[in-house]
Amino acid sequence: MHNGTNLLRVRDYNQQLVLNLIRLGNGASRVEIAERTGLAAQTVTNIVRRLLDDGLVVEAGKGTASRSGGKRRVKLRINSDAGYSVGVQLDREEISLLLLDLNGRARSKSRFPNSPAAGPLGTVDRAADAVRRLLKGTGVPAENILGVGVASPGPLDHEAGVVYDPPGFEGWGEVHLKEMLEERLGYPVAIDNDVVAAAVGEHWLGVAQDVGNFAFVYMGGGLGAGLFFDGRAYRGSTGTAGEISHVPLDPDGPECWCGNRGCLARFCSPRDVVAVVARDLERGQSSSLRVYFDGQQQKDIDFEAVCRAALAGDALASKALGRAARMLGNALVGLVNTLDVNLVVLGGKNFEQAGRLYAGEIERAIHERVLYGHRRKVEVRSSRFGEDTGAVGAASLVLYSAFAPQLRGLPAE
Amino acid sequence: MHNGTNLLRVRDYNQQLVLNLIRLGNGASRVEIAERTGLAAQTVTNIVRRLLDDGLVVEAGKGTASRSGGKRRVKLRINSDAGYSVGVQLDREEISLLLLDLNGRARSKSRFPNSPAAGPLGTVDRAADAVRRLLKGTGVPAENILGVGVASPGPLDHEAGVVYDPPGFEGWGEVHLKEMLEERLGYPVAIDNDVVAAAVGEHWLGVAQDVGNFAFVYMGGGLGAGLFFDGRAYRGSTGTAGEISHVPLDPDGPECWCGNRGCLARFCSPRDVVAVVARDLERGQSSSLRVYFDGQQQKDIDFEAVCRAALAGDALASKALGRAARMLGNALVGLVNTLDVNLVVLGGKNFEQAGRLYAGEIERAIHERVLYGHRRKVEVRSSRFGEDTGAVGAASLVLYSAFAPQLRGLPAE
Repeated sequence: MHNGTNLLRVRDYNQQLVLNLIRLGNGASRVEIAERTGLAAQTVTNIVRRLLDDGLVVEAGKGTASRSGGKRRVKLRINSDAGYSVGVQLDREEISLLLLDLNGRARSKSRFPNSPAAGPLGTVDRAADAVRRLLKGTGVPAENILGVGVASPGPLDHEAGVVYDPPGFEGWGEVHLKEMLEERLGYPVAIDNDVVAAAVGEHWLGVAQDVGNFAFVYMGGGLGAGLFFDGRAYRGSTGTAGEISHVPLDPDGPECWCGNRGCLARFCSPRDVVAVVARDLERGQSSSLRVYFDGQQQKDIDFEAVCRAALAGDALASKALGRAARMLGNALVGLVNTLDVNLVVLGGKNFEQAGRLYAGEIERAIHERVLYGHRRKVEVRSSRFGEDTGAVGAASLVLYSAFAPQLRGLPAE
Repeated sequence: MHNGTNLLRVRDYNQQLVLNLIRLGNGASRVEIAERTGLAAQTVTNIVRRLLDDGLVVEAGKGTASRSGGKRRVKLRINSDAGYSVGVQLDREEISLLLLDLNGRARSKSRFPNSPAAGPLGTVDRAADAVRRLLKGTGVPAENILGVGVASPGPLDHEAGVVYDPPGFEGWGEVHLKEMLEERLGYPVAIDNDVVAAAVGEHWLGVAQDVGNFAFVYMGGGLGAGLFFDGRAYRGSTGTAGEISHVPLDPDGPECWCGNRGCLARFCSPRDVVAVVARDLERGQSSSLRVYFDGQQQKDIDFEAVCRAALAGDALASKALGRAARMLGNALVGLVNTLDVNLVVLGGKNFEQAGRLYAGEIERAIHERVLYGHRRKVEVRSSRFGEDTGAVGAASLVLYSAFAPQLRGLPAE
């Protein structure tokens, strides 16, 4: 296996702290780093020398002399080309890929259809091929690839890199995704839940960079939340934290595929929105979506079509989406009340399509109805990564685990 | 201010690790400690010598000689009398107190009625008096008191020790509880949300000792949850995490005092149960509780009376409690699905009264209806601290912050 560059030696906490400040500071000097970290000037100087020697950091032009007439404040920046990370978003219908440089810029992208019928082996082979093609196209040398991050539907064990029979992936059973991809690609592979990956991406590169407690509400094929508590991704005891789709609202409500009744998913998931539209069409209500309903064609209505119709002013589509947005807004008020996060990030593939329709309703619900709303400000932001949210998150898993200042290996109580 | 004993010097991570193993190990030897911590034998010997010198630990009789014929395995135990912590549970109707020794045994208790009419000053004065009386009665020297922990309704800032206008405490505004009590008592005071304190108590001394992710569902005057994630108490961005009472289930549901509609509290809090019973009595339904309803007396029905009636077989009371238990069970399925905790602890004053009536329904809901129930075991346990849950939790705040192996002062990302 390639070992990436010497970047993987970045294990020292203080060094990670310094590196992260340089990354976020966009031109921090040694003096500023010492001030902000509380580290001794000599310690900072030593760490920076090591980072310069390793090629992780570059000096970006001399700054002005400090008032005391002492050392010049040389600006430090991350060397974008010192390392790259590949992100793979594994979805039931699509696999999307992306290459991030060390500054978090996307250097190359690709996406192609996935088929649940391909099975785990077929899917892994396709994904590995796609990674090889992506890298070939960019000319980045193999030794500069830090690793491959994979955002996968759960349930999964992110440490073991094993996925357990995710909903919609029939016949997967227990799939050793990390091992299978490492064998095929020769790079270290990190697997995580798609919602966790999306949250890590927002925390590392997106709209949640300074936020310790937030929920990333991800609307992909399903609906889930990636949770950050006290500055760390929270995965739960079995890696399934954030399954807000299956918060039961009504013990006597409609049956859900999960075996329970009255789950939130039955009121606001994309699948549910489509079902409501289909039912209304069946009942003969008029709508521009009726074209999908001639004969036996109603199964061809997808969420995207409903969103397009609503944006074009179709009343039936608007009503179905409005109801879903209202139920989701209501559920997110409950999530904020339970978790006291101060940011809700909205994103994911289906949110890209329905975003404008949902965001207003969700914002209104949270601003008007959260408990103790007079004492706290809860923000609602939309992810800027659009359709790439999952792939950016996946690639961020690698950079985050290599570079985020984290206390590793110390036993927690 | 008293500085407690030299116990407060216990700041070193390895020392805390060793101390905690001795505490939990109930007679661990130096050899066992070295094996379980991975610390070098000499390091363990040095730490233990320091703990013996400080009087925190005692040698509890010689063990048998080890097989290798080497040193005898001397059993080490915590010296119960080396330090004490006072716990104060501040409730709208009652203040309860408790003195814990270093082994977590309650050495003295007291409780007395509180009145919201007393205002913050009156309440703080009463509480301070009660602490003085409790300590006077036990004869514990002031220098052996590590501190006073206070479990208070929120919202509050546990670091600043400030409580902000908790529901039901009219006219409190911003109350500097920590400062006011420290001035009056001369001991260090730690304040925390009552649900957080209860969870810390269970983690330190109760039924959640080995559990990193759990929710303590607290039924006191209201209903709330104390949350532990990845081995740490989680308080949220403004100290209000765990407000599950105000998870809105139905955007068109009945109004809640919080200004929202359809909150869980409106379906299952003790207050709601009493309201449902009163309504049913008003409608003329027969019940043993009718004695409370002659003339204008219906306001005298309290939750305790309803529980007693249900336990004695009263159908009306049973129905109201059954409905509440069902809604709470449903909500806790949602909490488990969202947070992927593997333990739910039930406790608090009102749970003591209704415990037998609620626990079965909640257990059934969680065992039968949690998502991925075939892949994970979620336990439901009842707190063993009964009415003292809050006070034990409050006292645990002090011991926990002094002794739990925690990484302090290091910046978290």
